[in-house]
Amino acid sequence: MAIVLGPNRYGKAEIRLVHVDRTTPVHVVTDVNITSQLIGDFSGTFLTGANDKIIATDTQKNTAYALARRDGISTIEEFALRLARNYVGTYDYVTGARMEIEQYSWDRISTAAGPHDHSFVKGSGAIRTTLVRKDGNSETVISGIRDLVVLKSTGSEFHGFPDVPYTSLVETDDRVMATSVTARWVYGTGDIGPAPELDWDSIFHSVTSILLEQFALVHSLSLQQTLFSMGRTVLALHPEIGEIRMSMPNIHHFLVDLSQWGLDNPNQVFFAADRPYGLIEAAVVRDDAPTVANRWEGVAGFV
Amino acid sequence: MAIVLGPNRYGKAEIRLVHVDRTTPVHVVTDVNITSQLIGDFSGTFLTGANDKIIATDTQKNTAYALARRDGISTIEEFALRLARNYVGTYDYVTGARMEIEQYSWDRISTAAGPHDHSFVKGSGAIRTTLVRKDGNSETVISGIRDLVVLKSTGSEFHGFPDVPYTSLVETDDRVMATSVTARWVYGTGDIGPAPELDWDSIFHSVTSILLEQFALVHSLSLQQTLFSMGRTVLALHPEIGEIRMSMPNIHHFLVDLSQWGLDNPNQVFFAADRPYGLIEAAVVRDDAPTVANRWEGVAGFV
Amino acid sequence: MAIVLGPNRYGKAEIRLVHVDRTTPVHVVTDVNITSQLIGDFSGTFLTGANDKIIATDTQKNTAYALARRDGISTIEEFALRLARNYVGTYDYVTGARMEIEQYSWDRISTAAGPHDHSFVKGSGAIRTTLVRKDGNSETVISGIRDLVVLKSTGSEFHGFPDVPYTSLVETDDRVMATSVTARWVYGTGDIGPAPELDWDSIFHSVTSILLEQFALVHSLSLQQTLFSMGRTVLALHPEIGEIRMSMPNIHHFLVDLSQWGLDNPNQVFFAADRPYGLIEAAVVRDDAPTVANRWEGVAGFV
Amino acid sequence: MAIVLGPNRYGKAEIRLVHVDRTTPVHVVTDVNITSQLIGDFSGTFLTGANDKIIATDTQKNTAYALARRDGISTIEEFALRLARNYVGTYDYVTGARMEIEQYSWDRISTAAGPHDHSFVKGSGAIRTTLVRKDGNSETVISGIRDLVVLKSTGSEFHGFPDVPYTSLVETDDRVMATSVTARWVYGTGDIGPAPELDWDSIFHSVTSILLEQFALVHSLSLQQTLFSMGRTVLALHPEIGEIRMSMPNIHHFLVDLSQWGLDNPNQVFFAADRPYGLIEAAVVRDDAPTVANRWEGVAGFV
Repeated sequence: MAIVLGPNRYGKAEIRLVHVDRTTPVHVVTDVNITSQLIGDFSGTFLTGANDKIIATDTQKNTAYALARRDGISTIEEFALRLARNYVGTYDYVTGARMEIEQYSWDRISTAAGPHDHSFVKGSGAIRTTLVRKDGNSETVISGIRDLVVLKSTGSEFHGFPDVPYTSLVETDDRVMATSVTARWVYGTGDIGPAPELDWDSIFHSVTSILLEQFALVHSLSLQQTLFSMGRTVLALHPEIGEIRMSMPNIHHFLVDLSQWGLDNPNQVFFAADRPYGLIEAAVVRDDAPTVANRWEGVAGFV
Repeated sequence: MAIVLGPNRYGKAEIRLVHVDRTTPVHVVTDVNITSQLIGDFSGTFLTGANDKIIATDTQKNTAYALARRDGISTIEEFALRLARNYVGTYDYVTGARMEIEQYSWDRISTAAGPHDHSFVKGSGAIRTTLVRKDGNSETVISGIRDLVVLKSTGSEFHGFPDVPYTSLVETDDRVMATSVTARWVYGTGDIGPAPELDWDSIFHSVTSILLEQFALVHSLSLQQTLFSMGRTVLALHPEIGEIRMSMPNIHHFLVDLSQWGLDNPNQVFFAADRPYGLIEAAVVRDDAPTVANRWEGVAGFV
Repeated sequence: MAIVLGPNRYGKAEIRLVHVDRTTPVHVVTDVNITSQLIGDFSGTFLTGANDKIIATDTQKNTAYALARRDGISTIEEFALRLARNYVGTYDYVTGARMEIEQYSWDRISTAAGPHDHSFVKGSGAIRTTLVRKDGNSETVISGIRDLVVLKSTGSEFHGFPDVPYTSLVETDDRVMATSVTARWVYGTGDIGPAPELDWDSIFHSVTSILLEQFALVHSLSLQQTLFSMGRTVLALHPEIGEIRMSMPNIHHFLVDLSQWGLDNPNQVFFAADRPYGLIEAAVVRDDAPTVANRWEGVAGFV
Repeated sequence: MAIVLGPNRYGKAEIRLVHVDRTTPVHVVTDVNITSQLIGDFSGTFLTGANDKIIATDTQKNTAYALARRDGISTIEEFALRLARNYVGTYDYVTGARMEIEQYSWDRISTAAGPHDHSFVKGSGAIRTTLVRKDGNSETVISGIRDLVVLKSTGSEFHGFPDVPYTSLVETDDRVMATSVTARWVYGTGDIGPAPELDWDSIFHSVTSILLEQFALVHSLSLQQTLFSMGRTVLALHPEIGEIRMSMPNIHHFLVDLSQWGLDNPNQVFFAADRPYGLIEAAVVRDDAPTVANRWEGVAGFV
């Protein structure tokens, strides 16, 4: 029996990069946060401090800036793939790469003369994400959204749960339901090879719209039911997506009891609690898709 | 010489309250965070633990919920005034009140059938604020906005600063300028009495628009110049506002130097830094307005 | 091809519980944050909103409080196991449970008369963690620590890395090395059955001491080398631990260049950066330990 | 009536600086966060963008690093004064300065051979603060501590409060009392001139001990009573301190009601709530100390 190095990876986390496309006077701003990590034959540095195969994390940072300068950032998916391909196959000691990018939205500032050419205001707090994992020729693209905060002021029930010990929750046929959606979906359903070339932007916007619309339209008997409907509709309308995973906290809005002061409260005044909160996590999958090992490893908050 | 109690106040902070107006099927959601504090003759509890004049902070919380149930929340300014007036003049040991409320924005979810009646998505991260201080009959209303994050990708210069010791900054005639605006404006210019009745909502939206538009339109030679133009325009167009104070960090976007790899970088790729950041804080005032003592006391981040 | 429910779990997250042991006048405070989740046959609620198998998350919260009242919290590991065993085997539709608990430290306040019996001050920011996963009779206990922030002001080098494109980092034989250690270790090395009964407290304190001491004593040629030495020593001294995983950011402390003002800076004045940061993640394992599928699934920031 | 510039200041915020004193092999680490701001005749930049009197915020950052290199950081108070004096009187357009510094604690790592010479672990989360304001020859030093989190598991009562409308709180003669102390104390009691030379370190440690010990020893009838006792004792034992202000949230620990399941709960199991929380803010002063105008302006969370 010996004590040995197990799986490992390393790189530079949270490289904050803002790209300004100045091709025309109407600037385009792309605001991203990149975490670049490499996988490979790195036992030397762990065992003896020999760094001859360790591309410095500082170099990984410089590379992100240089590649953004060379060819811009068309989408975070394309850029993450370009970063991963920069290393894997180029250096024989780098066998894999893991690139995570998140993107923040900006809107043009409205002026009397219309949307401004080069002035922006930070948009919605919802953040677009991607995670590209490349191992040799196999490329996995998992895109997503997080911090998409939604609320229904009616159209949500919760009842019929079992009366096991320590149950005191009262059944309700009308409650406020609020959550902060984290969703991640993996592209492709079959064998893994090079990533497909897709219209990443339009798919992202379509998936986001589906998630929002299903949240709005489903008359909900449980947050689980809403979650599943959201995921199922994404898969139904996007054949290029193989699986979607969601993590949805139940941000409780408790009806305030004012009865001791002679006040009713017909679902009008609520206390929005911080903690604890319900937490529902689930995958929605295609039953004929082969299982791909380790696809989701290292992803938090998912089953 | 004796050691005595000085100024003091107490209450309940961060009462999270969501009000749903269900008067019609098109629900209106008002999402606020209330900090309620009282001022008065409270030396007993400090000196001996005699609590007979201490309206429990729990009671202050209940009062916020009950008053929201009784008459709704038309605007945060009106509600803060209503809360303050509930105490001052009612209990002889309560001589003043300080109510701070912040409000989070929600947008209706878009569906194929149009904006949804009762489903919402969290809007912009910019937060509307108010601070009402009532001392006897004197009422001060200071409203504001915070976390209004804006960025210009050009139209900003910075040069001509003195070359004092330890100066190494390079002059620039084209930089990215970004900030997160905190602004607070006080209503009224003369003697303080009961607060005026104003259209708080429309003023808030107008001021926000002015701040954004001035940020966009001013060709900036310094963040100070932009700040002053924003504040001056607010005062010029809103005679009901006596003074405005702003705190604006300079969120540095550093141009990445790629020259050692033969790459130019004509204002295209930037590193968005976290800390340190510049910090500009200033008031814009009317020169004939009387100074009102202590109006801004206990307000952070302002001169 | 059909769209179906995949893996899922649900529960109550971040149940904040403080237990006071008042058996003697010298009180013992246990301050924890519990996330309780169940795994089982829950397709009904997802597909149709039938909640007859959904033990309410509110019930899971109550259960945590009730079980703490019944038998206290000896250690977070023992309590997590007790919570998991409360459900699995009791309800036929609950086949598994996942309990995460983190614990915050408190120290007794020092007074002239010695440590106080019932007054405490929050201790170090390092947080003790455990994650218990129970599937039928198989129980996995993964304990850990996070936010253990450490710094060496010398005794750290970094050189010998390859000069690939975009490399500009300068080699150094003396730098500040700082990190915030997250470590998780799994108990047991062989087949999975019921969890062993161990002295969880003393192991936790021993592992923490080893991590700190190795960080201090290793003359470091890379953060990877330090990490591996920390992990290897834990395994060498704790045969009851099968594997340890660590995630260690390299919190950069950049030497400030003051040469243009005629000042040297022999490793005395540093800028502590926030982002980006290096990120090293690795497992240290026993080469004869069988691989246990899915043991680490859903754990973020690990390979 | 004209719209004009009011009070203003500007500078560089959150300069993260770590100083390593390597005079002996037993290194001393000083870890601080500096916000440097100047006050003066800056109307040019606000009105026209003329920056000839604007010492760049980048220069203020460099100055902090250079002065730390020149003469080290003996205490944050001494260093803040040195920074302020660097500007005021040197540049005729700089009439005042405001320097805020906070300091984070580090402990030596324990090894079998004793405390390590150059390896450290982050200490308590409590943060030492100072705020120096210099206007011409007048210097005010306000030092403090924040995030000093404390808890009493007994020895705290709360009753006798008035039964005004919306009161439902139950009286108690035994509760958990917890708070996070923010305290700031001003040095000096009379006319303001140059700051006194004091043993800033030993005073800080003494005041912190007094705050902790009073919290522990006072049998509390209200958080206000505890606060006043803490402040009064500081003033009684430290004649060099003129006034102390404290802000203390009441971090509620609610006793969990388990009676419906036949379980009592004699102050053993509590729910630690996040929001809302009580908030007590007060000054403790000397009755013969002259009032100094504006001493506390721009300090948040104080009366």
